[in-house]
Amino acid sequence: MSDQPVLVVGGGPAGLEAARSVADLGEKVILVEKADVLGGNPILASYAALTPDMENAEEAMQRMIDALAGDDLVTIRTGSTVVGAEGSAPDLKVKIAGAAGEETLDVSTAIICTGFQHFDPGRETQMYGYYEYDDVITLVDAERMLKAGGFKRPSTGEDPKRVCFIQCVGSRDRQIGNQWCSKVCCGIACKEAIEIRDFLPDCKVFVFYIDMRMYGFWEDQIYWKAQEEKKVNFIRGIVTEITKRGDTVVVKGEDTTMGRPVEVPMDVVVLSVGMEPSEGTLEMAKIFDLPLESHGFIETVGGPLNTVCTAREGIFAAGAAVGPADLEDSISMAGAAAMKAVGYLRRLART
Amino acid sequence: MSDQPVLVVGGGPAGLEAARSVADLGEKVILVEKADVLGGNPILASYAALTPDMENAEEAMQRMIDALAGDDLVTIRTGSTVVGAEGSAPDLKVKIAGAAGEETLDVSTAIICTGFQHFDPGRETQMYGYYEYDDVITLVDAERMLKAGGFKRPSTGEDPKRVCFIQCVGSRDRQIGNQWCSKVCCGIACKEAIEIRDFLPDCKVFVFYIDMRMYGFWEDQIYWKAQEEKKVNFIRGIVTEITKRGDTVVVKGEDTTMGRPVEVPMDVVVLSVGMEPSEGTLEMAKIFDLPLESHGFIETVGGPLNTVCTAREGIFAAGAAVGPADLEDSISMAGAAAMKAVGYLRRLART
Repeated sequence: MSDQPVLVVGGGPAGLEAARSVADLGEKVILVEKADVLGGNPILASYAALTPDMENAEEAMQRMIDALAGDDLVTIRTGSTVVGAEGSAPDLKVKIAGAAGEETLDVSTAIICTGFQHFDPGRETQMYGYYEYDDVITLVDAERMLKAGGFKRPSTGEDPKRVCFIQCVGSRDRQIGNQWCSKVCCGIACKEAIEIRDFLPDCKVFVFYIDMRMYGFWEDQIYWKAQEEKKVNFIRGIVTEITKRGDTVVVKGEDTTMGRPVEVPMDVVVLSVGMEPSEGTLEMAKIFDLPLESHGFIETVGGPLNTVCTAREGIFAAGAAVGPADLEDSISMAGAAAMKAVGYLRRLART
Repeated sequence: MSDQPVLVVGGGPAGLEAARSVADLGEKVILVEKADVLGGNPILASYAALTPDMENAEEAMQRMIDALAGDDLVTIRTGSTVVGAEGSAPDLKVKIAGAAGEETLDVSTAIICTGFQHFDPGRETQMYGYYEYDDVITLVDAERMLKAGGFKRPSTGEDPKRVCFIQCVGSRDRQIGNQWCSKVCCGIACKEAIEIRDFLPDCKVFVFYIDMRMYGFWEDQIYWKAQEEKKVNFIRGIVTEITKRGDTVVVKGEDTTMGRPVEVPMDVVVLSVGMEPSEGTLEMAKIFDLPLESHGFIETVGGPLNTVCTAREGIFAAGAAVGPADLEDSISMAGAAAMKAVGYLRRLART
């Protein structure tokens, strides 16, 4: 229909789904990904299994990548970044920089799928001891271990006897300026807790939380499963300090259900770090001149009844580039964004 | 491309978005809605304002309805139900019953957008006193009052001085068999609490909750707004009984943060009722031979990476027909389902 391809920026779950969808609708698409490989965070951050159904993350992402292979409508540029954009849809000129230098491409519309980055727990606050203590790790570090096939104390390489998760690290936290809930960390912590208990039946696992936000089917798919089948201990509480005593990590805080202070030794502490807009998301906002919403993600317009249109006509966004998103959100939004992009071109062609 | 239209069943937010999207992609679509008007629950259940941005629900839905008007690709049948289906996509024969009798139509694919129904708090448990006490109402009854422009004690017509919300009525409840979290009730209760405080600055408003599931931006858009600006009181607790004393309703239970029993008189109690699959959803599952997932909603296949495909090729589903969904979910899924339906037809045409 249009001669110029739709540009999809970002090769994670949302970007892969957006590209597949545009091609399914019969339009050309070019997918630009900064990394040398496709797959986004599930691959780059070595996720073990996807929430909630525990599918192997590498296999799942490979299936999405394979679905693009051999399609004449699809062009893929890995190791490349969009470094400039001029004009307006349906006549955008974008400059793409890669290993082979720079090229300028004509594209019709753009779908920004540049996602999130994991909060760095050492950046703004030292209270969690992430950079001081080997046995304080993040959800992401835990994924990497689980993917490698086990769960060990980083300091000793031995099986831990007591592990705890601390929720809302870098989320729901005004002191550091992150005034949002990152939506998925409760589910991912429960998923990892289940995996740890599978590897280490003798290890006690605790989750310190403010609210367990196990919305929808996650409630019984992972929350009750963790609590009842896997005997994970959920403690409503606020952690105020993490220190070291001997070779254990000591978590201090308040058990708000029991109304008493807690001070518990742990072998490993897992910080449930939240989502922030990725560097790529902020870069694309600048390059495509897209306003950010109040939390710093790309703003969509139209409230809950329009989830993928940005302030600029013909420029769409999907997934965690516009705010905390689970995989289902990212995939649905990517499909919707592809529909909007192609629908926009069809409307132009009809008028 | 295809001569036969795509069938969309259900005229709520998801169905309206799916129909608009199919037509935007250049395919014919027929939208079948059981009620005599379009708009779904926001209209039929008289919602006041949409969560989280407080847009007038009637205006928002009218905008979606208007967007379909005058499009040659769109046919609308209100007051009609699908009563039979034969064959397989892309050659489905569906029987539609309406005021003018029955007709059989050839359609290519179908998108089921038949949504949810609100849990009936008197059906399985009498503990909440919904059918006994006038001043015990549901979130839906409250919407109706707020839409009419105020919030009164049903028993007296006077302004209430104390109102409480009770969360998770018909959700997270094994006794009644509803083992899921309905996802949106925390947000809607906060939204209504804000509206009540706007109408009645002298009224104290309480929310009894297990976990406040204010995911993503709802955290500060409505939760902190309710708590800080509007001084709504959030009490973590379990309600065990609602009784009457004099002309007040007494809520008995346990404040689990303070670890003590509570017994508080209220002028109005609002039950935050959850989502169940609607009758229409269960009907369509039977007629189109679609398996249900373990909670009784229509099953989608492919886990988090495929949110709208059912077990049957060429039959898609979107919104709360497949599980608890907020408006954003419904809209994104509807766009994605339209993309999948049209993509399916395009692929057939190419091969």
